[in-house]
Amino acid sequence: MIIVMKAGATQKQIEAVEKQLQQLGFRTHPIYGEVKTVIGAIGDKRLVKANSIVHMEGVESIVPIMSPYKLVSRELINEDTIIDVDGVSIGGNELVVMAGPCAVESEKQLMEVAVKVKEAGAQILRGGAYKPRTSPYSFQGLEEEGLKLLASVGKETGLKIVTEVVDTRDVELVSQYADILQIGARSMQNFRLLSECGKAAKPVLLKRGLSATIEEWLMAAEYILSEGNPNVILCERGIRTFETATRNTLDINAIPVVKELSHLPIIVDPSHATGNWRWVEAVAKAAIAAGADGLMIEVHPDPSSASSDGPQSLKPEKFADLMKVLKPVAQAVNRTI
Amino acid sequence: MIIVMKAGATQKQIEAVEKQLQQLGFRTHPIYGEVKTVIGAIGDKRLVKANSIVHMEGVESIVPIMSPYKLVSRELINEDTIIDVDGVSIGGNELVVMAGPCAVESEKQLMEVAVKVKEAGAQILRGGAYKPRTSPYSFQGLEEEGLKLLASVGKETGLKIVTEVVDTRDVELVSQYADILQIGARSMQNFRLLSECGKAAKPVLLKRGLSATIEEWLMAAEYILSEGNPNVILCERGIRTFETATRNTLDINAIPVVKELSHLPIIVDPSHATGNWRWVEAVAKAAIAAGADGLMIEVHPDPSSASSDGPQSLKPEKFADLMKVLKPVAQAVNRTI
Amino acid sequence: MIIVMKAGATQKQIEAVEKQLQQLGFRTHPIYGEVKTVIGAIGDKRLVKANSIVHMEGVESIVPIMSPYKLVSRELINEDTIIDVDGVSIGGNELVVMAGPCAVESEKQLMEVAVKVKEAGAQILRGGAYKPRTSPYSFQGLEEEGLKLLASVGKETGLKIVTEVVDTRDVELVSQYADILQIGARSMQNFRLLSECGKAAKPVLLKRGLSATIEEWLMAAEYILSEGNPNVILCERGIRTFETATRNTLDINAIPVVKELSHLPIIVDPSHATGNWRWVEAVAKAAIAAGADGLMIEVHPDPSSASSDGPQSLKPEKFADLMKVLKPVAQAVNRTI
Amino acid sequence: MIIVMKAGATQKQIEAVEKQLQQLGFRTHPIYGEVKTVIGAIGDKRLVKANSIVHMEGVESIVPIMSPYKLVSRELINEDTIIDVDGVSIGGNELVVMAGPCAVESEKQLMEVAVKVKEAGAQILRGGAYKPRTSPYSFQGLEEEGLKLLASVGKETGLKIVTEVVDTRDVELVSQYADILQIGARSMQNFRLLSECGKAAKPVLLKRGLSATIEEWLMAAEYILSEGNPNVILCERGIRTFETATRNTLDINAIPVVKELSHLPIIVDPSHATGNWRWVEAVAKAAIAAGADGLMIEVHPDPSSASSDGPQSLKPEKFADLMKVLKPVAQAVNRTI
Repeated sequence: MIIVMKAGATQKQIEAVEKQLQQLGFRTHPIYGEVKTVIGAIGDKRLVKANSIVHMEGVESIVPIMSPYKLVSRELINEDTIIDVDGVSIGGNELVVMAGPCAVESEKQLMEVAVKVKEAGAQILRGGAYKPRTSPYSFQGLEEEGLKLLASVGKETGLKIVTEVVDTRDVELVSQYADILQIGARSMQNFRLLSECGKAAKPVLLKRGLSATIEEWLMAAEYILSEGNPNVILCERGIRTFETATRNTLDINAIPVVKELSHLPIIVDPSHATGNWRWVEAVAKAAIAAGADGLMIEVHPDPSSASSDGPQSLKPEKFADLMKVLKPVAQAVNRTI
Repeated sequence: MIIVMKAGATQKQIEAVEKQLQQLGFRTHPIYGEVKTVIGAIGDKRLVKANSIVHMEGVESIVPIMSPYKLVSRELINEDTIIDVDGVSIGGNELVVMAGPCAVESEKQLMEVAVKVKEAGAQILRGGAYKPRTSPYSFQGLEEEGLKLLASVGKETGLKIVTEVVDTRDVELVSQYADILQIGARSMQNFRLLSECGKAAKPVLLKRGLSATIEEWLMAAEYILSEGNPNVILCERGIRTFETATRNTLDINAIPVVKELSHLPIIVDPSHATGNWRWVEAVAKAAIAAGADGLMIEVHPDPSSASSDGPQSLKPEKFADLMKVLKPVAQAVNRTI
Repeated sequence: MIIVMKAGATQKQIEAVEKQLQQLGFRTHPIYGEVKTVIGAIGDKRLVKANSIVHMEGVESIVPIMSPYKLVSRELINEDTIIDVDGVSIGGNELVVMAGPCAVESEKQLMEVAVKVKEAGAQILRGGAYKPRTSPYSFQGLEEEGLKLLASVGKETGLKIVTEVVDTRDVELVSQYADILQIGARSMQNFRLLSECGKAAKPVLLKRGLSATIEEWLMAAEYILSEGNPNVILCERGIRTFETATRNTLDINAIPVVKELSHLPIIVDPSHATGNWRWVEAVAKAAIAAGADGLMIEVHPDPSSASSDGPQSLKPEKFADLMKVLKPVAQAVNRTI
Repeated sequence: MIIVMKAGATQKQIEAVEKQLQQLGFRTHPIYGEVKTVIGAIGDKRLVKANSIVHMEGVESIVPIMSPYKLVSRELINEDTIIDVDGVSIGGNELVVMAGPCAVESEKQLMEVAVKVKEAGAQILRGGAYKPRTSPYSFQGLEEEGLKLLASVGKETGLKIVTEVVDTRDVELVSQYADILQIGARSMQNFRLLSECGKAAKPVLLKRGLSATIEEWLMAAEYILSEGNPNVILCERGIRTFETATRNTLDINAIPVVKELSHLPIIVDPSHATGNWRWVEAVAKAAIAAGADGLMIEVHPDPSSASSDGPQSLKPEKFADLMKVLKPVAQAVNRTI
C-alpha cells in the first residue's frame, strides 16, 4: 500500500501517518519527492482496515498494491480450477454448454427443450423457477413447482440442472433440486445471498453484475469461497454501457483478464449479452475463441410465446445449428465441445 | 404500443401480428408507410405480456407509448405525496435532513453524532446496522445490537431512525426498531426485498441503483407500492460512469425528471454521490436548488477511525456549518430547512 | 416517423401537428388511443428537418421509424462492399491484417517492423506520422517526414500504407503518401475532416469514437459516402465504459450488428481495445470468430522504447506467433488469413 | 511516480528498471514488500516520456503521483483566474450568462433574441455559425455570413459574442468576428484545433467532451495554455452515460472538483446537459448553487422552427423568468447575477 501525501504536507503529518500505519502492523518507508512525499506501507494486511488513513491530515490518496481478493486469485492457487458437477467437468478441456428456456413454464415446454438441447450436445439444462423481473406485473416464475419440473426433467434426460436463487430463504430449497445454484446479475452484490450460497453444498454460477467491475465480480466470488465453497463458475453476460443497439455490451476483454487474475472457470451468456437471437451465434463463437470455458444459451421451443426474454431465445433447431458451427471454433483453440 | 414491421414485411405477416394483438385485447391500426408498415395497438394493457409479438415474423421492433409503471406515476396521482414519519413530513415545504454515521459502531459514537446533528437541525438519524460491503473481510455491521442502539438513541434524542435492510429475513426485525426502512443501491433490484418492504408498515427509502435508469428506479418503487405500501422516498445517490475523479456521478438531472414523472418525494445523498467530504457542500446546495425534498448526509465524530466510508463523512462541526449555508439556498427556492 | 402526443393533448393541438407535418411533405395518420394519441407521419423524408415538431404544444416525443443513414445501410445496397486497395481486398473472403508501430519513429524502426510483419502475413503497414496525444508534452509525430518514411518503406516491402490524418489541412498531403486515410477515434465526429476525406481519392479507415453509438458511427461513415467516397472501412477499437482493468471495452456485439445494418467492411483493433499486449491474442481470435473482416495490430521492435502506446504493442516475434494461431480460427469461420 | 513490480520479479529486473529510471533523470527508491517490490521514482518530470518503463520485464504497473497537467493546476497558480472579455468579467463575483440560439439563422432571429436576452440580463450572445451536426443532411450553419450577423448584432446591442470554431482553417476568420472562441464537446480532443486556439488572441470557451474525464478535459485546456493563451473558460455540458431519459447527464460533481484542481473559471450549459427546456431551470439553479461561474443557455424566439436543438431551447419569455429566479440562488451563495 502506498500513501500519497499532499504537496505541502508537514513533517509532523507524515510522521503521524507513519505511526498510525505502524500501529496497524505495517512497516513504513517514506520517500521524499520534490513536490510530494509518499509512504510505502509494507505488509500483506488485506484484512486490515486501513481506510482510517485516508482521513488523516495531509493525506491525498491511498494506492493499493495488492488486489483486495485472495482466495480467487492466482497468487494463492495458480492451477485452473476444474469443477465436477456430478460427472460434468467445468473448466477442463471440454467446453460446457448450458441451454434451456429463460423461465420454466410447463413440463411440456421444458421436456421438449431438454430433449433437443441434449441431442444437440448440451450437458446442462438451464431454466428459471424464480425470475427477477423489472416489473411487478411480469411473470415471476413457477417457484417450487418449477424446481420440481427441473429436477424431474433433469433426471429423465440425464442433464444437470442450473437454476437461479434470488432469496436467502430459498437457498436450501433450491439446493435440493438443482445441481448448480445460479446467482443472477442483479444479485451479484446481494452479499447475504453470496454468503448463503457459500455455505451450500452445490457449485455456484456467479453472473457478473450489470455495472460491476471485474474486481468487484472477483470480490463477490471471494465471498462465496470465504464461506468454504470453492466451486464458483463465473459467467460474463454483458455490462451496461451507453450503447442502445444491443441489450448489453459483452465485455469480451474480461475473458483473458479473468483468466490472468483468477483460477476459476469462466463461461459466457451471449443471449443476455446481445438481447437478440440473431447475434447469438457470432458472439458465442467469439467467446469460445477468446478462451471461455463454456456457454449459457437461451433456447425456447416457441420464442414468440415465451413468458420472458423471448427476443433473445433461439429455437431448438437454431441451437443445433449453432452447436455444429461451434465445433471447428473450439478445435481451433484446442478445445472440444 | 407501436409495432414496427421490417421493410419488406408481407401482408400476411402484418395480418398475423394484428390477429395476435387482437387476441391480447388490443384494437389495431396499421399505417402503411412508403418503406415500412407500423401497427398501432390501442388499449392500456400494461399488465399484458406483449413480448410475444417481438418474435413474430416480419416484426422489427416494438415502441411502448405508455410508461411501464402506473402507481408511482403522475398519470394516476398528480398531487405530490407527503409522507408523515411520526410527525416529520417528507415531501412538503420543509426539507428533511437525514444525517449520521455510515455504520453504527458504538453507543458513544452514535449518541455523540445524534446530539450534534439534531442540534444542527437534522430530523432523522441514519446509521447502518447491516452493511453491504464489497469485501467479505470488511466490517459487516453490529446487526440487531446496532438496531437496538439506533432505537434507544432515537428515543432519547427525538430523532427518527432510518436504517438499511439487506435481507428479506430481516425486514420484520428492522421494522420493529426503525422508522424508515432503507433499501440500498445494491439492493434496488432485489425484487423479493422490495416486495417484503411493500408489505411492511414502515415508509421505505429507496436508493437508486448504481446503474439503474430512472425508469428502472421507478419500477422498483412500483414493486413496493403494488404490495400496498404507498410511502416511498426516492434517494438519488450517484450513478456509475466512466469518471474516476469522484466515487459516483450525481445525476442532478434526475431531480426535475423524477418530479415530472412521479408524485413521490426525492432526496439526495451527496456523500455517496461524491465520495469525498470536501465536495459534499457544493453538491448538497445544488440538490436543494434543483428541487430535492431533502438530503441524506454521512456524519462521523472521527472520520479517520470510521469503520466504513470515512473519506466521505463530515465531522459534526462541518455538518453544522453546512446546515447554515443551506438555509439561504432553501429560501431562494421557497423552501425551509 | 411517429409523433406521440401527451395524455390530455387537445384536438386542436393534434390538428396543428398534423398540419405542420403535411407542410413538411408527410401524409399523416392519427391513432386515437385510450390515453394518448399518436400520429403516423408517412414519407421517407430523412433529409427533412422534422425537429420543428418536437416543440409544438401537446407533443410528448417523436419516434423515428427509419434509420437516419441511407448510403451506408443495407436498405440501398445489400451486397457486401469489397474495397480494393491497389490489389489488397478488404471485405472479401481473405482477412486483412494491418500491423505496425503506433508512431513512426525512424526509418530503421519502421523498416524492421515492416519486414517482419510482412513475413508473418500482414498486407498493410500502419504507423502514425501525426499523433493525437492527450498531453501537449507527448511526442506528436514526425509529420511529413514520417509520411515519406511510410511511403518509401511501403514501396520497398510491397506493403500498403494506412496512416492517420488529424487536420483538414493535411488531407491532401497525406493522400499523396498513404494508401488508406485513417480517421482516429477522437476525430470520428470531426465532421469537416470527414467531409474532406469524403472528397479524397483514397479509401478511409474510420475508427469508432470512444463513446459513439453504432448509429453515430454509421452516420459518420455516411458523411464520407455522401461526399462521393464509397470506400470506407469501419474499425471497432473499444468503447469507454466504467471498467478500469482494461483501457477500453471491445464491443464485440458491434460486429454482427454492423454486419446486419451495413454493407461496409469492419475490422477490429485489439491493441487499443485492451491496452495490453498480453490480451491481444484472445481478443484478436474473438474478433475473427465473430465475423470481422480483419485486424489492426500494434507491433513495435522494442515496445519498451516506443514513443507511444508501448504497453499494448506486440514484439514482432509475438505477432508472428499470433498470425499462426489465427489461421485455424479463420478457417473455422470459413475465412482465410 | 511509483513503479509496481510483479510478485516474483527478480532482483535483476528490479535493478534494470532502476537503471532505466535513472537514465531518464529520476532518483530511485525501491521498497521491498512481502509479496511485491515497488520503486519510487523521484523528480517532477512530467515532460519526460516514462512509458518506456511499462514494458520492461517484471513491471506490473505504473502509478503516477503528480497530475499530468501543470499550467491549469492550482499547484502553479492558486488564485482564481478572472478573464476580461472587453469589459465583461468571467470568474469573478458576478456570474456570466451567455444566451442565444443554437444556430444563427437570420438577422431577424438573432436580433430578436439578442435584444431580449440582453434585457433579461445576459452579457454574452451565443450562436453557431458553423454547426457540427451528426447527420450530413442537417443544417450546417451560415458560416461566414453567420459570423457577420453575430458581429453586427453584438455591436448594436453591446453584447459580447461567443461562437464555435470547428476547423483549424477557420480560427483566424472566427477570431475576427467573435469575442470568445468556443471549442465544442466533439472537438475537445481535436488537438490541432486546441493548439490553433492557443495561438489566437481571443479567450476560449472549452466544452467538456461527451466522454472526457475531468483529467482529460484539463489536459485539453493545458494544450491551449501551453501555446500561450491563458484565457480558458471551462464549460460542463453533460457527459454520456447509460441514462436515456435525458440527452446527457450533467456532472454537477465536476464543479467542486474542477474548482479544487484548477484556477480556471467554469460555467455550465444546462440546455445540452438535459436536452429538454423543461428541465433547464432546475439544473441552472443547481449549477449556480454548486459554485459555477456562469451559464450558457439556448434561447430561440420560436423553438418549434429552430434549425437545430429546438427541444432544449427556451423562449425569450421563459429565459427572462429564469433570470429572475436565479437571482436569489446567486445571492444565497454570495454571487450576483
